[in-house]
Amino acid sequence: MTVCGEMATGLSSKQKAAMMMKVLISVLLVLVAVSSSYGKPDKPTPQNQKRVPQTLSRGWGDELIWYQTYEEALYRAQTNNKPLMVIFHLEECPHSQALKNAFASNKEIQKLADEGFILMNLVFETTDKHLYPDGQYVPRILFVDPSFTIRADIIGRYANRLYAYEPTDMKLLLSNMQKAKKLLKTEL
Amino acid sequence: MTVCGEMATGLSSKQKAAMMMKVLISVLLVLVAVSSSYGKPDKPTPQNQKRVPQTLSRGWGDELIWYQTYEEALYRAQTNNKPLMVIFHLEECPHSQALKNAFASNKEIQKLADEGFILMNLVFETTDKHLYPDGQYVPRILFVDPSFTIRADIIGRYANRLYAYEPTDMKLLLSNMQKAKKLLKTEL
Repeated sequence: MTVCGEMATGLSSKQKAAMMMKVLISVLLVLVAVSSSYGKPDKPTPQNQKRVPQTLSRGWGDELIWYQTYEEALYRAQTNNKPLMVIFHLEECPHSQALKNAFASNKEIQKLADEGFILMNLVFETTDKHLYPDGQYVPRILFVDPSFTIRADIIGRYANRLYAYEPTDMKLLLSNMQKAKKLLKTEL
Repeated sequence: MTVCGEMATGLSSKQKAAMMMKVLISVLLVLVAVSSSYGKPDKPTPQNQKRVPQTLSRGWGDELIWYQTYEEALYRAQTNNKPLMVIFHLEECPHSQALKNAFASNKEIQKLADEGFILMNLVFETTDKHLYPDGQYVPRILFVDPSFTIRADIIGRYANRLYAYEPTDMKLLLSNMQKAKKLLKTEL
């Protein structure tokens, strides 16, 4: 099982100033790699060369609906009573890319994702520790019940990286999506 | 001066469960409107009708680099030593749309935004109260210094909505962008 290193870590507003120097050191290398795939933020494009607009799907399913922020995705999950599927990945990580290709080309997964899930993909970690139960590696896929419970029980086949999937794991991922669709009972 | 009502409010992880019912009641009407412009999340598109991939720019400058999350944008602002420009808007708000058209078609603004700023636009409020110094109306534009100071001093021309701009305010916006480019002195 091969995964990639940590994504950049999001910070809560209180911790931002204090933790930023730490984060800087630990994730600078990752971000240098990310930035080159993230639209060359530092170099203005020459006027005769058009940039391609960045999409929220990032290639994980261009015809699916992707949400921008975790807050909005949670809100949508609750209001639509659908589980949220959060995909953590990096454009420069070959394992992420391979999983993306398998995910995007699998019609069953795309259909179930479209009809049954609130979707988001992230290339930057959130501040919610529940979203990295066993570390901040990529690729990893977490499900969140509309009751806001992280489904830490829905795991892949790798004991050392519980939420990682490989391109050959599409059947398991599909079955895990079906599991996530069985919503937890809430107290309401 | 005419602006639109509140965007949906993001919640901190602690407040999520407790506040969600309140939020539900207060922003449901807004979200019903938003959702219709946000890619029809509930209706699968017929197979013969392709969805257009959603972009991070949402039309505010398709050739600019837009960041997905506030955490990442803050991080980029600091690492690139550039101010962050955060545009709050709603697809269903005509004032937002009018401002977007003026913003996207103004070459000076697009050039300065491209070269001098870290950019993000949001259709859902964050949990950071500093980002709504005088309310959560849209459209509004806030600048954040790379030192993570919200530039509450950089305001438009409307006393009741300090961070709102109208399409006719592009000169003022450009001048405010220039002001934001003059970074605050930090203790380093």
